[in-house]
Amino acid sequence: MNDTPSDSASPGPIAAPGGDRATPPVVAVIGVGLIGGSVALAARARLGATVVAWDPDPASLRTAVERGAVDVAAESPAEAVGKADVVFVAAPLGAVGDTVALVLAAAGPDTVVTDVGSTKADVAARFSRDGRFVGGHPLAGAETAGITHARDDLFEQAAWYLTPEGTTTGTLYERLHRLLTGLGARPLAIDAAAHDRAMAGISHLPHIVANVLVSHVSGALDPDEPLPAIGPSFRDATRVAGAHPALWADIYLANAPALLGAIEDASARLVHARTLIERGDRDGLVAWQRQVAREREALQAAGPDPGPTTELRVAVTNRPGVMADIALALGRAGIGISDLTLSPSPDNTAGVVGLWVDAGEAQAAAALVQALGFPVTPG
Amino acid sequence: MNDTPSDSASPGPIAAPGGDRATPPVVAVIGVGLIGGSVALAARARLGATVVAWDPDPASLRTAVERGAVDVAAESPAEAVGKADVVFVAAPLGAVGDTVALVLAAAGPDTVVTDVGSTKADVAARFSRDGRFVGGHPLAGAETAGITHARDDLFEQAAWYLTPEGTTTGTLYERLHRLLTGLGARPLAIDAAAHDRAMAGISHLPHIVANVLVSHVSGALDPDEPLPAIGPSFRDATRVAGAHPALWADIYLANAPALLGAIEDASARLVHARTLIERGDRDGLVAWQRQVAREREALQAAGPDPGPTTELRVAVTNRPGVMADIALALGRAGIGISDLTLSPSPDNTAGVVGLWVDAGEAQAAAALVQALGFPVTPG
Repeated sequence: MNDTPSDSASPGPIAAPGGDRATPPVVAVIGVGLIGGSVALAARARLGATVVAWDPDPASLRTAVERGAVDVAAESPAEAVGKADVVFVAAPLGAVGDTVALVLAAAGPDTVVTDVGSTKADVAARFSRDGRFVGGHPLAGAETAGITHARDDLFEQAAWYLTPEGTTTGTLYERLHRLLTGLGARPLAIDAAAHDRAMAGISHLPHIVANVLVSHVSGALDPDEPLPAIGPSFRDATRVAGAHPALWADIYLANAPALLGAIEDASARLVHARTLIERGDRDGLVAWQRQVAREREALQAAGPDPGPTTELRVAVTNRPGVMADIALALGRAGIGISDLTLSPSPDNTAGVVGLWVDAGEAQAAAALVQALGFPVTPG
Repeated sequence: MNDTPSDSASPGPIAAPGGDRATPPVVAVIGVGLIGGSVALAARARLGATVVAWDPDPASLRTAVERGAVDVAAESPAEAVGKADVVFVAAPLGAVGDTVALVLAAAGPDTVVTDVGSTKADVAARFSRDGRFVGGHPLAGAETAGITHARDDLFEQAAWYLTPEGTTTGTLYERLHRLLTGLGARPLAIDAAAHDRAMAGISHLPHIVANVLVSHVSGALDPDEPLPAIGPSFRDATRVAGAHPALWADIYLANAPALLGAIEDASARLVHARTLIERGDRDGLVAWQRQVAREREALQAAGPDPGPTTELRVAVTNRPGVMADIALALGRAGIGISDLTLSPSPDNTAGVVGLWVDAGEAQAAAALVQALGFPVTPG
């Protein structure tokens, strides 16, 4: 497989050739499971897109056509990619990398390619030199699987992480961002490694720990002891224990570096708790509980809070990485971009980026963008 | 304090002198917080009991009287114990042992004394030679505290662990058991050490682990990274993080031996998960998820399932520990006793124990009791 960008790709500049954005987009979907099928349904229903799809399972592809998710069932990934404006690679985690490579080899220079895998560092590193690829991860739909559960509102208000790199072509990033908001999602730019650490902490480690709790109670207790009455704290903490064995084995392995770090850190924190208990350090335990209560409150308060939005207009020079720099600076501050436009100057040496952000966060967003060296004016 | 039974106590035999069970009981409650106050309300409302109470905080005691939970506000624990048939020590965990000692010193030979602390091995060991004491632990009401939240239906269908010992006086155990079912609870006999291990696994360890998850995400992640969108698995797993700092510090310390064992075991299981991930052992991870899914299903299926009950009549000889042997044998099998009677023979050398158990479990219960050497007949 060809993991490096073809010479025809156009990495770097904010503007790439072609593509009239007034006409409905052509969207290619590789893999029509729950996520791919829902992208297809939403793109057709909400954006009037033409959806071309391929799936290794002919039955799933047929069902997708029957459900009205797909206009054209392609014979191969390359055929599906054809003249697509945007390609979604919605393959199982283990197949994402090779499928993206295949798609990039088949796609033209004005096609943006993204994936929906739950880990991002691997794929970002593998394709970081191709300006057409942007890693993605929608936080939606883990409980069920398959085209039969696909819905056109699956991404309504859902966070959708994007991992732009310095090489990402600005106009292609803008196109993908706008298409995602059109599906109802809230795109948020994040560094790929930071994404994987965050997912390890808020999703993968809780699954590991739920397994540990169940296997402790089930295995470590004397089989002659009565099974205890399961209280609400145990039930809540173990709801995801043993979920989807094959899927979760792949997720653990795909995010191994970050997850191993999280397990290491959690183990050290268990040792801390053990030490406080061993010492009979009541003051230390009270302080620990209090500290955790404050941290929990802060985490809960950090949730997204959609409100009225306002536009900022940013004058940029056309250099590689401009869009990634802006999107990541706001993403790091937890500021979502509800809409994003890019207007290159006629000679393509500069341009104006339009950013729609929460009105309450506009001042902070403007300061962050100005700190990058770009003049900002209200829209 | 006097931790050993007074000479007037009557350890061992199934029958103890006195006490006409037809008249409503006199119940003493030492400590009228959420649990003590709810015992008082339920005993008056459901059993027509006379409730005498004492609390170190005069305001709480006044409120208990005003709320109609208490008939007589006593000036001291000894005065409250007076002529009580049953004494509930509902003191904070750190004060349970000394308060039980005080109460046993003040109580007569025909008084059963119990506590409601969430750990049992300590108190069981300290008073194991006094036939009047039975350790207890209702699984109810951890979310709020104080007499103002007390309710007469707090124990409706709630599991209420009891830890009888070989020395426990049979008639006193019967009286306590019947009073608890009268409050709406489901008493279940359990070995004190097994109780503490079970609580460590299903309650205390989940609290420790919830703290670890929150402090990991809050502390281990780079403060420059965006706070991640908190998903449902994290929210569920950390609902109890940082709960009631002083209360939980005391609970951790009171159950230190069992909890340290649980933390040790959980740490070893984390190492197991880490090793599978480090090795890239996909088959091992899939097998682990599958195994946990089966264990979780078994734990869920083990929950109490109240149905029609049936009576078993057990002929017993009057020797120390008979009631504890029977109650613990059924408790170990997870068989709840919804009602319990004890009819001593006129010469007090033998008697008949009536056991009401789930109809579906009657055969298993009869086999277990017969295996102890006692003839069983249907009621």
